Amino acid sequence: STVVVRASAGQINPSIRKNEEKVADFVKVENLPTPKAVYCRCWRSGKFPMCDGAHVKHNKETGDNVGPLVIESPAAK
Amino acid sequence: STVVVRASAGQINPSIRKNEEKVADFVKVENLPTPKAVYCRCWRSGKFPMCDGAHVKHNKETGDNVGPLVIESPAAK
Ligand code: FES
Ligand code: FES
Repeated sequence: STVVVRASAGQINPSIRKNEEKVADFVKVENLPTPKAVYCRCWRSGKFPMCDGAHVKHNKETGDNVGPLVIESPAAK
Repeated sequence: STVVVRASAGQINPSIRKNEEKVADFVKVENLPTPKAVYCRCWRSGKFPMCDGAHVKHNKETGDNVGPLVIESPAAK
């Protein structure tokens, strides 16, 4: 049997903006960066708060099933 | 010293929609549930994909600093 030991004691976010007490992001719809804006929920993106696809590696390594939140403007196809 | 053992082997999402290969959510801005829509990024909300404040307990228990993504419509104050 395998025992997994993690130093982070159950933390979800390993490294993003650890100087902030709580990482919350606020976006006005008129300021969405792209018509189809893909936001990270895995805390492993190199371009957080946007998704860069890092969830794929995380899911593969751990068997997890997390993915992004996509906000679509009327202009999006 | 304390050793923390987790059965989930580094998974971020303990229980949400585990029947889905990848939990992605798509929202059109015209369908945002409220003018100020608060989306969960901690995977512990009872009303996922919306935030219900469960990140507070998670952060307290683990020393983590995760929080939601807030999408604000023009109608939001
Ligand atoms: S990189 Fe985090 S959800 Fe895609
Ligand atoms: S309940 Fe998950 S971020 Fe608030």
